[in-house]
Amino acid sequence: MSAESRFLTLLRLLANDPAAQGLADDVAILPVGDTRLILTSDTMVEGVHYLPTDPPADIGWKLAAVNLSDLAAKGAKPVGCLLNYALSGDDAWDEAFIAGLGEALDRHAMPLLGGDTVKMPTGSARSYSLTAIGEATGAVPTRSGAQPGDRLYLSGPVGDAGIGLVLASADAAASGPLVEAYRRPRPRLAEGALLAPHATAMMDVSDGLLIDASRMGQASGVAITIDHIPLSPALERVRGASTAVQIAAARAGDDYELLFTMPRGLTPPVRAIPVGHVAAGSGLTLIIDGAVIPLPDSLGWEHG
Amino acid sequence: MSAESRFLTLLRLLANDPAAQGLADDVAILPVGDTRLILTSDTMVEGVHYLPTDPPADIGWKLAAVNLSDLAAKGAKPVGCLLNYALSGDDAWDEAFIAGLGEALDRHAMPLLGGDTVKMPTGSARSYSLTAIGEATGAVPTRSGAQPGDRLYLSGPVGDAGIGLVLASADAAASGPLVEAYRRPRPRLAEGALLAPHATAMMDVSDGLLIDASRMGQASGVAITIDHIPLSPALERVRGASTAVQIAAARAGDDYELLFTMPRGLTPPVRAIPVGHVAAGSGLTLIIDGAVIPLPDSLGWEHG
Repeated sequence: MSAESRFLTLLRLLANDPAAQGLADDVAILPVGDTRLILTSDTMVEGVHYLPTDPPADIGWKLAAVNLSDLAAKGAKPVGCLLNYALSGDDAWDEAFIAGLGEALDRHAMPLLGGDTVKMPTGSARSYSLTAIGEATGAVPTRSGAQPGDRLYLSGPVGDAGIGLVLASADAAASGPLVEAYRRPRPRLAEGALLAPHATAMMDVSDGLLIDASRMGQASGVAITIDHIPLSPALERVRGASTAVQIAAARAGDDYELLFTMPRGLTPPVRAIPVGHVAAGSGLTLIIDGAVIPLPDSLGWEHG
Repeated sequence: MSAESRFLTLLRLLANDPAAQGLADDVAILPVGDTRLILTSDTMVEGVHYLPTDPPADIGWKLAAVNLSDLAAKGAKPVGCLLNYALSGDDAWDEAFIAGLGEALDRHAMPLLGGDTVKMPTGSARSYSLTAIGEATGAVPTRSGAQPGDRLYLSGPVGDAGIGLVLASADAAASGPLVEAYRRPRPRLAEGALLAPHATAMMDVSDGLLIDASRMGQASGVAITIDHIPLSPALERVRGASTAVQIAAARAGDDYELLFTMPRGLTPPVRAIPVGHVAAGSGLTLIIDGAVIPLPDSLGWEHG
């Protein structure tokens, strides 16, 4: 067994409660009285999950947004959150971070409930964690419910954030819709709540369409075919829409659109772009402009 | 306004829900249906909250214990937790950390529900956060309920962990009850649950008896006098019981005993050491061997 899977096995031994779902989903589902709480936590590390040159307000926004996106994928309503904050030693930077975090929390009605603030030793990369609590609004879709015959949808185009990261890496002062997509992702809470009663499976695309669709297929025990990679006009303007650009967009992370399946014949109750379908079997197939494309070696962002 | 208080003011603006208690307590109290959840989160940073030479299993244990101690101070029953883990790059180290964390979680029936695992850039201090969820078992004492006339109690002696830290800093291979007190604190969950219905105020002593008693007094709007500093036999054996040793013990952090007040005439339902009393007014008075002692400049561990 590899060290990584030994580590995960050890964690799963501690996750001996049905609420943990075997740590196989992005969230825990905790029954409390008549309701179910949705629990999720994400950490962002300087130089790993964001650029040290990113504006602090955007880093704060993003920390909230990535956690809210996990709630969105469960159709959950935000209840509150706890913040673990590492002071930067630069007061203006810290205040801008909290202002950006606060914008995202206010926008999505998620109060801060508590947390911890620490100082890091000089020279250390800083990291921030947010633990978000949501409340189920009804059905809670998992990533494992996709059925043969289902259609696969995205709530919006992919690839913008990936190009935005490239642009921001080259020039910290870069701006525009692609950089905005990377720095200020929009959690699809309203869409998630409307989709939850109808989706057979749902998750947010945080690591890339190909890898996340592949995970959905594996968890559901089905084969998934992607036959359309939706690109935004902003991305097409900058990069075109060649096969290479489409593959790059399908491997790029950080878009936070919802990926979901619904039975054929049902119409999604929100804007949704058909991107493929589900069949019996296993594995991921990628079709671009009618031709089957060999899958790239890396399907997206693999977590450490 | 200082930068630190500006930062806290910004955080409090986001804590616009009664559950957050204005971020003035160690925990949030979230009503869900007929019950109340107790939420707390603590971060431990390498070189700040533990020694890089501390055994990883002990660091893992302690991360669980400090969060469980916050639940204990509310008389809460553990429900579950989320872990934010920074991989060390040393698989055996990571596995030992999780084993120690797991020991503490198992011992206190707190399942792991989720979290996030990240990689840090090489050379960075690592940090770990745990967010713990408990359920109120009845009354939830705050730190602000101490009343004039109350007696002040501790659930056990203080100062052991502080000396344990000194010993472990000098020699990573040091062992014995004082090092054990520093590395493997025992959250007082059973005591907390028994005390919660009776205590007028309660908190855990994480930063030092003097500073934590001072905070209780301030939050309650009362004057607190400490007239006894209980030392363990193990500490007296190593350091004696001079006035200086008693003051050092009262300033030392990391003991995680419960500090609580009860009306005069009531007998605590658990082992409890009377350490002082509450009066109308404000401020902290320290009496050792019958003499009022000037308070030291620093009362304990001040968080960043």
